[in-house]
Amino acid sequence: MSVLRPLTDEEASVEALAVFNEIRQARGTDYVNNFWRVLAHDPAQLRSVWDRIRQVMGQGALDPMVKELIYIAVSTANGCSYCIHSHTASARAKGMTPEIHNELLCVIGLASQTNALATALGVPVDPVFDTP
Amino acid sequence: MSVLRPLTDEEASVEALAVFNEIRQARGTDYVNNFWRVLAHDPAQLRSVWDRIRQVMGQGALDPMVKELIYIAVSTANGCSYCIHSHTASARAKGMTPEIHNELLCVIGLASQTNALATALGVPVDPVFDTP
Amino acid sequence: MSVLRPLTDEEASVEALAVFNEIRQARGTDYVNNFWRVLAHDPAQLRSVWDRIRQVMGQGALDPMVKELIYIAVSTANGCSYCIHSHTASARAKGMTPEIHNELLCVIGLASQTNALATALGVPVDPVFDTP
Amino acid sequence: MSVLRPLTDEEASVEALAVFNEIRQARGTDYVNNFWRVLAHDPAQLRSVWDRIRQVMGQGALDPMVKELIYIAVSTANGCSYCIHSHTASARAKGMTPEIHNELLCVIGLASQTNALATALGVPVDPVFDTP
Amino acid sequence: MSVLRPLTDEEASVEALAVFNEIRQARGTDYVNNFWRVLAHDPAQLRSVWDRIRQVMGQGALDPMVKELIYIAVSTANGCSYCIHSHTASARAKGMTPEIHNELLCVIGLASQTNALATALGVPVDPVFDTP
Amino acid sequence: MSVLRPLTDEEASVEALAVFNEIRQARGTDYVNNFWRVLAHDPAQLRSVWDRIRQVMGQGALDPMVKELIYIAVSTANGCSYCIHSHTASARAKGMTPEIHNELLCVIGLASQTNALATALGVPVDPVFDTP
Repeated sequence: MSVLRPLTDEEASVEALAVFNEIRQARGTDYVNNFWRVLAHDPAQLRSVWDRIRQVMGQGALDPMVKELIYIAVSTANGCSYCIHSHTASARAKGMTPEIHNELLCVIGLASQTNALATALGVPVDPVFDTP
Repeated sequence: MSVLRPLTDEEASVEALAVFNEIRQARGTDYVNNFWRVLAHDPAQLRSVWDRIRQVMGQGALDPMVKELIYIAVSTANGCSYCIHSHTASARAKGMTPEIHNELLCVIGLASQTNALATALGVPVDPVFDTP
Repeated sequence: MSVLRPLTDEEASVEALAVFNEIRQARGTDYVNNFWRVLAHDPAQLRSVWDRIRQVMGQGALDPMVKELIYIAVSTANGCSYCIHSHTASARAKGMTPEIHNELLCVIGLASQTNALATALGVPVDPVFDTP
Repeated sequence: MSVLRPLTDEEASVEALAVFNEIRQARGTDYVNNFWRVLAHDPAQLRSVWDRIRQVMGQGALDPMVKELIYIAVSTANGCSYCIHSHTASARAKGMTPEIHNELLCVIGLASQTNALATALGVPVDPVFDTP
Repeated sequence: MSVLRPLTDEEASVEALAVFNEIRQARGTDYVNNFWRVLAHDPAQLRSVWDRIRQVMGQGALDPMVKELIYIAVSTANGCSYCIHSHTASARAKGMTPEIHNELLCVIGLASQTNALATALGVPVDPVFDTP
Repeated sequence: MSVLRPLTDEEASVEALAVFNEIRQARGTDYVNNFWRVLAHDPAQLRSVWDRIRQVMGQGALDPMVKELIYIAVSTANGCSYCIHSHTASARAKGMTPEIHNELLCVIGLASQTNALATALGVPVDPVFDTP
């Protein structure tokens, strides 16, 4: 099931194919995953998302592997199965060990529990947590 | 507005007060924030959540500051204002710089965007992302 | 802050006022809470929601207090502060004790944790759980 | 598709297998469902979740079947398909009739509708709903 | 996998079959999709939802195609794969072109990103946005 | 309460002030709302989000007012109070009448209800809804 079909290289527009090739080069693999092939129905949005990924997910003050962990955390809370699978694969490729994965899962589970409790209890934010 | 009132030390049960004091010791401050004071209406759940926090959020394969970033990410996607405020404070206390905070926000924003796109497009998970 | 202002009895249309009065009669109080006063900007939707509430939330195979607990659970997971507050009040009025409230919160917290874990792990549904 | 593979009894650690056997005993069946078999990759978290389930989901001020209904409600709002399937099965095993299931669904649907309306309208919480 | 089995015409109650036939007439097709066939286990809820769909989704101040776009937007943010698929089909049937679909996806993605940013930053609502 | 303080023009960097001025020009008002003033702590992200807003929210195959309605729908399902308030104001400025607002709310409420029902029932997507 899918809403739009993943496009093959042959079906993609020139603009979309250019993005596919940048993805290949950046990742050192010929494989372009379905997310990009489906986004290719709108080459302008494909370009915009890919450019943003490159700006945001590289080395910075945070390590790229840590950024993947944060990505998985958001994707889990948003219930996006596709992104959980693809970014768990990325995190592994960037050095996530089973121990790190386990700790990530523990934090996600605990945060989900306390988020629900704080919300159900309507806990008022402490003034000490206000803007520094 | 709150669903249950934060309990003062005087109102808390012996069991709850014991947890308050462990929180004080672990954090090196006399201040106990509202989340714990509201949870204190059920001392058994207060104990359970505090014990779990200590097990999960300390040093492990991941740095405690990174765990706070993941906590903020989950809390944002779940829309828990209380937890965003309290764990942003914790992350700062554990070394989150403004640069790290900015990068965290960029990843959260980007993940939220692509989560929505992958979901709206019903992108099929690539077989390469299946269990290793 | 609000998107639309709660309407007073004087500002409400004849159709909206009729619903206000049914609410008063059903609850045995003159007080009409803000949700209904804001919905009154669209008397047709006000009527539709109120009629549905009356059909769904009364005694049936489930006790009305249990229905309020389920309402709180959904409202928490959806992060609706207004509904958490109003339905916690309703649940108390229908017999929810502090013990029941505590147990409700424990189940909500636990379910939120395991929901996140099952989602992050992409656990495949067991065939035994398929339609009977 | 799954992020981690369900472990067989042979693959599970001694600690994980001990939890599997407690699950078997508690439920009076040899079948251990995928959630536990996937969690078994982290025996400490497996133990923690299983112990919490036993504490929270048993008889208390609330009936175990009612707790399952609340679990289903949370799982639905969080969009966790696995938990919906497994806890609907549990609820049936604990006495949920088709009539109760229908009423549960009506409450979940109605709460979801009014949650969205209250949120979209930014309805201010009535002072009467504040902490008693 | 499904929690309740879609009912065939033969299995549906008289009341449910009456709704099926209204659906057929309204849409000019013999095909009744699974959502209705599963809801048919509770003919009263089936009737209620179908009547509401007819009231809400027809021509009004907004065009029916625009209403389908809004439906897709909500369904995406709620992560409801079934509703995304069925309402994308409805939107196409009511005139959604690929260009409109692309723009819809861009708005959904952007809103999801800025929702997360505004939430993570706890941005205070400007007084100018208060009720007119 | 806020996580980062809105920056005044005096506190904003040159790059952030340039975006503030583009916002002023585009909207024909001197007022710059809090979202932008808080984002200004990271001028690069401020620039990125503002540029994207301009690309996405202008006239295209869809009318700008319709795009605001979609934005409100997403923001509601994501529970972002800030975005609901600000985009409801934008929608009004672009021609949203009370009648349109009412219809928007009806669709959002109905979609939220049926999303929950389809999810709780695990309704299998009909093959006819698969990719054309």
